[in-house]
Amino acid sequence: MQREVSYGEAMRRKYPEPIVIAISRDSQGKYNPITLGWFMPTSHEPPMVAISVAFARHSYGAIRGSGCFVVSFPSEHMKEETLFFGTKSGRELDKLAAMKTKIQQAKMIDSVLLEDAVVNLECILKAELTTGDHAIFVGQVVAAHVNADAALRRLYTIDSHYGMSAVRPV
Amino acid sequence: MQREVSYGEAMRRKYPEPIVIAISRDSQGKYNPITLGWFMPTSHEPPMVAISVAFARHSYGAIRGSGCFVVSFPSEHMKEETLFFGTKSGRELDKLAAMKTKIQQAKMIDSVLLEDAVVNLECILKAELTTGDHAIFVGQVVAAHVNADAALRRLYTIDSHYGMSAVRPV
Repeated sequence: MQREVSYGEAMRRKYPEPIVIAISRDSQGKYNPITLGWFMPTSHEPPMVAISVAFARHSYGAIRGSGCFVVSFPSEHMKEETLFFGTKSGRELDKLAAMKTKIQQAKMIDSVLLEDAVVNLECILKAELTTGDHAIFVGQVVAAHVNADAALRRLYTIDSHYGMSAVRPV
Repeated sequence: MQREVSYGEAMRRKYPEPIVIAISRDSQGKYNPITLGWFMPTSHEPPMVAISVAFARHSYGAIRGSGCFVVSFPSEHMKEETLFFGTKSGRELDKLAAMKTKIQQAKMIDSVLLEDAVVNLECILKAELTTGDHAIFVGQVVAAHVNADAALRRLYTIDSHYGMSAVRPV
């Protein structure tokens, strides 16, 4: 049976929610990561993915300005940096340097891969759509990489207080 | 360490992936559900969500034509109908009737809620963006409903062969 509630209350039932990290070169020239819960694939052919980024975020200008971004799926072992990348702003610091995150240059675009992530997707920005207080960025995937450890699990938000964990089927 | 692979191989590392069911009134007048893995919230204020629907799907025309849709989060007990809604076409049959799915009328839009789902969001179509072989539909949420059973868990795809299950943190 259904009962009507506020949107905010309804969305507290969405967890666990998979997390991604988008990395783009900002106007200062540094590679800036942002943690996002709002991601989806959006085309098979060509392969495309979409992310939602708030206008207020430093990454909004970085993605628009550079025209490309990497989408990483953080691993279960990356809780600390995933929280850091989602709660600090690249306007004020170099988040990758601050966390000593291991990176490697992307192959097809001007961005970086997260070495310890489960997946890295290199994306060229193809479209932008304004929604409410966010923009949807659509990227075409031009290269894909996976962690050599096939058993490594991705990270999920498990509650509305930044709790994070891997998950497994019940 | 990262190794380059095809996009398809990389995306086999995405699971578990949360599932939603979008329900819209089609041109025949019946309410038609489609199972989707491609969903994300996309604005806090106003509350908005986005789904990706292939052009080839019956639901593509139904959502465009009706201008509204419900997004349901199926529960862990809805595996059979979730698979059915994702693999059969509403062009050929009434999927909700075929599965005897319990529904109730939506409050603000011309669609239906799934009574046994974890969450139902009533959405008014606000924007459409063509990606590759899919369209992104952006809906503003005008009413939200949750299952009275607060312990009910949502359903996830857990592999690339339609395996589905609830999940729990490790």
